[in-house]
Amino acid sequence: MRTENIVLDQERNVSLRCLIQDCECTYIPATERPAMIILPGGAYQFQSDREAEPVAQAFLNAGFHAFILYYSVGKHAVWPNPLSDYEQAVDLILAHKDDWHICPDRIAVTGFSAGGHLAACAATMARIRPAAAILGYPVIRDYIGEICTPGLPHPSEHVDARTSPCFLFACRDDKLVDVSNFLDFQLALTKAGIEFESHIYGLGGHGFSTGAEEFQEQALCARVKNWPQDAAQWLGELWGRMIPTGFSQPLLPRYITGDGSGRLSLDCTMAFLRRQPAARELLKDQFALLDAMLARLDLPESSKEEFQTYYTMRFLAGTSGMDAAAQQALEEKLNTLRAE
Amino acid sequence: MRTENIVLDQERNVSLRCLIQDCECTYIPATERPAMIILPGGAYQFQSDREAEPVAQAFLNAGFHAFILYYSVGKHAVWPNPLSDYEQAVDLILAHKDDWHICPDRIAVTGFSAGGHLAACAATMARIRPAAAILGYPVIRDYIGEICTPGLPHPSEHVDARTSPCFLFACRDDKLVDVSNFLDFQLALTKAGIEFESHIYGLGGHGFSTGAEEFQEQALCARVKNWPQDAAQWLGELWGRMIPTGFSQPLLPRYITGDGSGRLSLDCTMAFLRRQPAARELLKDQFALLDAMLARLDLPESSKEEFQTYYTMRFLAGTSGMDAAAQQALEEKLNTLRAE
Amino acid sequence: MRTENIVLDQERNVSLRCLIQDCECTYIPATERPAMIILPGGAYQFQSDREAEPVAQAFLNAGFHAFILYYSVGKHAVWPNPLSDYEQAVDLILAHKDDWHICPDRIAVTGFSAGGHLAACAATMARIRPAAAILGYPVIRDYIGEICTPGLPHPSEHVDARTSPCFLFACRDDKLVDVSNFLDFQLALTKAGIEFESHIYGLGGHGFSTGAEEFQEQALCARVKNWPQDAAQWLGELWGRMIPTGFSQPLLPRYITGDGSGRLSLDCTMAFLRRQPAARELLKDQFALLDAMLARLDLPESSKEEFQTYYTMRFLAGTSGMDAAAQQALEEKLNTLRAE
Amino acid sequence: MRTENIVLDQERNVSLRCLIQDCECTYIPATERPAMIILPGGAYQFQSDREAEPVAQAFLNAGFHAFILYYSVGKHAVWPNPLSDYEQAVDLILAHKDDWHICPDRIAVTGFSAGGHLAACAATMARIRPAAAILGYPVIRDYIGEICTPGLPHPSEHVDARTSPCFLFACRDDKLVDVSNFLDFQLALTKAGIEFESHIYGLGGHGFSTGAEEFQEQALCARVKNWPQDAAQWLGELWGRMIPTGFSQPLLPRYITGDGSGRLSLDCTMAFLRRQPAARELLKDQFALLDAMLARLDLPESSKEEFQTYYTMRFLAGTSGMDAAAQQALEEKLNTLRAE
Repeated sequence: MRTENIVLDQERNVSLRCLIQDCECTYIPATERPAMIILPGGAYQFQSDREAEPVAQAFLNAGFHAFILYYSVGKHAVWPNPLSDYEQAVDLILAHKDDWHICPDRIAVTGFSAGGHLAACAATMARIRPAAAILGYPVIRDYIGEICTPGLPHPSEHVDARTSPCFLFACRDDKLVDVSNFLDFQLALTKAGIEFESHIYGLGGHGFSTGAEEFQEQALCARVKNWPQDAAQWLGELWGRMIPTGFSQPLLPRYITGDGSGRLSLDCTMAFLRRQPAARELLKDQFALLDAMLARLDLPESSKEEFQTYYTMRFLAGTSGMDAAAQQALEEKLNTLRAE
Repeated sequence: MRTENIVLDQERNVSLRCLIQDCECTYIPATERPAMIILPGGAYQFQSDREAEPVAQAFLNAGFHAFILYYSVGKHAVWPNPLSDYEQAVDLILAHKDDWHICPDRIAVTGFSAGGHLAACAATMARIRPAAAILGYPVIRDYIGEICTPGLPHPSEHVDARTSPCFLFACRDDKLVDVSNFLDFQLALTKAGIEFESHIYGLGGHGFSTGAEEFQEQALCARVKNWPQDAAQWLGELWGRMIPTGFSQPLLPRYITGDGSGRLSLDCTMAFLRRQPAARELLKDQFALLDAMLARLDLPESSKEEFQTYYTMRFLAGTSGMDAAAQQALEEKLNTLRAE
Repeated sequence: MRTENIVLDQERNVSLRCLIQDCECTYIPATERPAMIILPGGAYQFQSDREAEPVAQAFLNAGFHAFILYYSVGKHAVWPNPLSDYEQAVDLILAHKDDWHICPDRIAVTGFSAGGHLAACAATMARIRPAAAILGYPVIRDYIGEICTPGLPHPSEHVDARTSPCFLFACRDDKLVDVSNFLDFQLALTKAGIEFESHIYGLGGHGFSTGAEEFQEQALCARVKNWPQDAAQWLGELWGRMIPTGFSQPLLPRYITGDGSGRLSLDCTMAFLRRQPAARELLKDQFALLDAMLARLDLPESSKEEFQTYYTMRFLAGTSGMDAAAQQALEEKLNTLRAE
Repeated sequence: MRTENIVLDQERNVSLRCLIQDCECTYIPATERPAMIILPGGAYQFQSDREAEPVAQAFLNAGFHAFILYYSVGKHAVWPNPLSDYEQAVDLILAHKDDWHICPDRIAVTGFSAGGHLAACAATMARIRPAAAILGYPVIRDYIGEICTPGLPHPSEHVDARTSPCFLFACRDDKLVDVSNFLDFQLALTKAGIEFESHIYGLGGHGFSTGAEEFQEQALCARVKNWPQDAAQWLGELWGRMIPTGFSQPLLPRYITGDGSGRLSLDCTMAFLRRQPAARELLKDQFALLDAMLARLDLPESSKEEFQTYYTMRFLAGTSGMDAAAQQALEEKLNTLRAE
């Protein structure tokens, strides 16, 4: 391992602390490793020590290269400076991908509190989105963002089909960044069909970092300290685990429905397919069935609409008793259609 | 351990399968044990085997008495029959509390899918609320409830200050009961200040029960199988862990803010205190500060209001620089006021 | 699950408590399950409650059928009564293998303290050896056996090539059955090339059963409570894990060297091959090399001999630089020879 | 964290790679941290990469300062060069204890294979013994030591009352350093009453380092990768866990019996007390009881003697029915006697 501090912007006091794994030694048959960019918290006013090195050590221990980004804070935190800092860091890491043995499609970001806000912005708005984002007790809601520093964007409003898969964690009793922040972003990811994993632990407050006992000001429930390993395990499922010959097959999907896949299929949501003229025509019998079913249900219109935004045509096919052969035939026809 | 099947309603085919721990042997110095009532899933049409005995065994192994409630399904599932079944089961368990060595204030419920709906209804609407509710991939949204059986209540709308603490888990890729169900209930618990813990695992679909590999039809991410131990650990933190002399001190709070505590304090939310005339008068300087702060923030009115529903007066005191002594003085005055 | 108490010997007060999994329900595609026979401790004077039901519940939770054997104690513990009780229990379980859905080649035993002595005897001396033995803080040494009840055999002296694979655990500070008991049996298993796994935890004393906090009289180190899950995981590696279609491929070897495999190979120990005339002839160059190497080492003769009882011919081949092709050729020739 | 490479002996190519935690930042209220010296394996011929940095990262992640000692190998490995290297490293670390914020009584060592031999020698023979030693698949037996490099000492023969507490791990199927090595040292620690914890996993071979999947040449059983966390947890139990105010109370005893404590007590072994004239006199009734009991047991003399080397006078008192008050009275008298 070697360490290096690279100044990204002298005026704004932005720097990247690099902790680079040795990749040219006998124990690593694979030639490239994933990278984790760490964004400490501190309300965009400072950088919390406890969310820097200890987090880097956790990901080094999981086999990652680690980079701590000391992004713009205080008077320099004017938006979009912090996001530009992130983009500059990624550019620099990619420029060194050969000499640092970086796997270019496995660069992720972990952010805490205000750094979680920045990580969520990276996942939703950056020029080069991270391959995954870990969000620890993130600032999401507009009011908490405004209290930190004026003019911050609201990441939930920017979630789209290109948004990075996310791993989120927080504690229920967080009094500084209420879990409604967390729920808000989680709902946006759900609506967009993005893969995520989330954990809200019963007790632990705000700013617990890795959960290591040595820097806790309050009691924590026993599960809090699991998140670093769980997040690394989730990344291994998302990207494939590091094995002697490279990476194993990924286990997790990138998208939950077919809407983000770029082609039409039974795994697209009913609402998505309804918006596609060619699909609407092909599936007109199914939509008639759907409308009949919805008509029978005692539900407000808004629920009937929302239902179609979460559930896939395959759910409808299954519910309405379409057999596997018929589903397959329909799938093949759908696959040939062009999405608009 | 002894087992017993007790018919609760012959006509509706409702019964309670009781798996009672031996409490009169040398290894249990404590004389009472907590009880877990298990509600299998099955869309209110049937009872899923895999969500019955294997779950009971997990809680037996954690030291609980276990009860599997075979509640009303199919044509008997007309609401509120299933909830009545639950209440009848609790009555019966309480009636046997002495001979079965049941700890009467530690009777919890675990429900899956439609059984999760019933557990959520128990937690929000039952005559005797469970001391905690474990909800596995629960049916919550009106449209999924309607598809199961017509006329089911929407538990999120019934969350109140008496709602039981909850432990929730599901998988992100659940195609039968979309995680928006989960998020909906989670948000209602958040708004009401109820203690909860929640886990949405990246992969595992619907109906995975304990996560044991032997009955999985699809791939699961590695963390899914942790929930039974995590839930038991959370219950130990909520109620105190079983120790030779009885129960240890609880770690978790019953409520996240002071709103549910029955007395006024700095830990009540700003919105709650604003609604209390006596508090509004006492805290008028603080509310003036708050209004000035809010006026400076570039936020829609709805955000300014929502903020006050989540954050406590202690947050405001801290943010505005009030020292510990002043906070303590204010706290004492608040404590003497009567809540309306 | 159903429970049944079957009297095996009325006069000696021997009975088998059966906790049988339901195997005819939808959640278990596989038709047979492994069985665990549990032997509580109690110095052959009584049966410890805490080592009976709680252990059964742990293995039920891991998917096993569980059987608690209340074997002969007190005046009835005259050897070989307890071992006969064990054999009778196995006979009964095998007789019910069809109606109880028992996997006949996956019947294991778990014993504690004196029950660990009995389990070790079952693993080394029983007519039908268990497919695996879990030994918790077992009585092994002659002096502790004699203090329990006169005339007990010393299981270490009976370890042979047919001995069952073992999982052993104990605590370092055990003052009733000193860990020298444990080490004694571990060494015998090592010498015989039997597969085992062992854990000696730093603190926990004697009689901690599953490690559950509720029945501990003394402090335990945090790892003690892992053994039930670890043992179940080890059994899954030894036998294959339960999966919907039956059992996965086993991971663990039955024997550590080839000595127990019934055929000659490079994986047999040097000492074993030396005792085989045909092998001694075939490998005469290798034995000459070995003797030359040993002659150069400054070691007592006893060490030179002991070395050959633990290390395989493949180790010698590797150390002496034999290439893979030559090793393969030699392996094939060895395989054709008959062991005496 | 900062890294530094310090040459300890240019001629022998000995150096210390230092990975020093930041201790002057906000997240560490405590001013000193424990240190781990890592000794990679390599048969005293080379240093294995995989047992260097990855291990350092595991202990950094657990909050330790980490030091990788590249000790004398090859032609420089002539004994006692490697042990001198270790001692020099400790001297250097202690000399920097103030600027590196090292906790001087919490310097431990972790060694693998030949490095495990060196760690065992440090624990038994070094001028300054480590506060604990972690031994991974260590070379112990004379024949394996001789094959590595001639003239190595046999650490088991040097175990004494000053030997460091040890955490040992290995895999059952290790074909390069057979587990008889492990058992040999374990037995020596047992005889000396030294605290230890040990884990022999069912499968994993030799050289698996941290157990991380990316550098495994063979299959491992699932528990192997637990050892780094388990070892760190054991150290926390031995020394106290790092907490904001320093270290918590230790949980583990330094010695298993009272023999190593420097004073006479009921917790000393019967053999130890028999060798103390004053104790022999005070306890003459007890020894008479003991001799009568031993006379009744059908045991060889060697067993009767060995029994007394493992079991304490408190065991005898308990077994012979001495009540608590009598035990306390005897304890107080014993405490006043001087050990010889």
